Amino acid sequence: MSVSANPIEHLSQTISRLPGFGPRSARRMVLKLLREREKLLRPLIESLTYADQNIVSCTQCGNLDGTDPCSICNDPRRDASQICVVEDLADLWAMERSSSFRGSYHVLGGVLSAIDGIGPDKLRVHTLCERAAQDIVNEVIIATNQTVDGQATAHYLTDALQESNVHVSQLAQGVPLGGELDYLDDGTLGAAFRERKAFS
Amino acid sequence: MSVSANPIEHLSQTISRLPGFGPRSARRMVLKLLREREKLLRPLIESLTYADQNIVSCTQCGNLDGTDPCSICNDPRRDASQICVVEDLADLWAMERSSSFRGSYHVLGGVLSAIDGIGPDKLRVHTLCERAAQDIVNEVIIATNQTVDGQATAHYLTDALQESNVHVSQLAQGVPLGGELDYLDDGTLGAAFRERKAFS
Repeated sequence: MSVSANPIEHLSQTISRLPGFGPRSARRMVLKLLREREKLLRPLIESLTYADQNIVSCTQCGNLDGTDPCSICNDPRRDASQICVVEDLADLWAMERSSSFRGSYHVLGGVLSAIDGIGPDKLRVHTLCERAAQDIVNEVIIATNQTVDGQATAHYLTDALQESNVHVSQLAQGVPLGGELDYLDDGTLGAAFRERKAFS
Repeated sequence: MSVSANPIEHLSQTISRLPGFGPRSARRMVLKLLREREKLLRPLIESLTYADQNIVSCTQCGNLDGTDPCSICNDPRRDASQICVVEDLADLWAMERSSSFRGSYHVLGGVLSAIDGIGPDKLRVHTLCERAAQDIVNEVIIATNQTVDGQATAHYLTDALQESNVHVSQLAQGVPLGGELDYLDDGTLGAAFRERKAFS
């Protein structure tokens, strides 16, 4: 490994390349790590090394985990008949935190984007169609973000899944819990009106 | 090494213990690291490991560096007759960035604090007095912070250094460059008035 003459400077530079860090906060982090080697630095090295050596991408759903297939795909208590399609691992984690879905996932790895040159071949669309064509699967819930690209991707997927003969659904739109109407955009309010339901 | 069942969760927890991180930002960092293993994760592991194995504390001045004595103490171009006393490594780095001092340093490792039970024996005061007693040293510049504890420490050091027969000085007080008088505290303005100098 090649390092500059000064290992502190080198570590600062490496940390400052991480998201959310600048030169100043990187230096502060280096100082903190070097002051608490036993408590912070070494556990961090161990965790990072362990993660690097053990975390693999699930060939079935694209989730990252210590096993392949991942613990969600492997879990017999989860409903394999439902597939929830998310853009990203972060979205999958958000779903899992909410404990509102007990089926399996499919991580696309991004959204279609003409500007960034991301076509269906760069996403995990083909494997989604293959999974959806299996007899066990009867519903695909498309949970891409409510952005222009996310919704364009949702429409594309709906078309692509048509011949799989599965039920394709999407998340409900409306007023978020705790949301104040005054601060909501017109589109959300419009959707909430259109999708209004009987008072329970 | 013992890790929880899920290496991602374990890494998130380790990162969330670092300063400036919460559970959410730690997850975001984990995701970023795992997505860019070659570009971010592995260089980070290498840098941290290298730093852990190679950075030592300078027995002379308390600086952290890849060598002992550190590169500053070892540098023959630096003036060994002047010692600048700083609380902390971060202060030493700030001085070095400003390139305004070409002597050697002495890192105290904190300040005296009755509340936190930090007495002179917990700081590197004794080694400072030993260094100051050497013939080569003729000035000790006390650059502790302008806080109550920092200034109390400065006074203590001035007393402790009296028998070493060195000149003891401190940094000038006044209006910081770019400072607006309107926003300055009364103490700083008072000091700036008292220490006023002929217009050059």
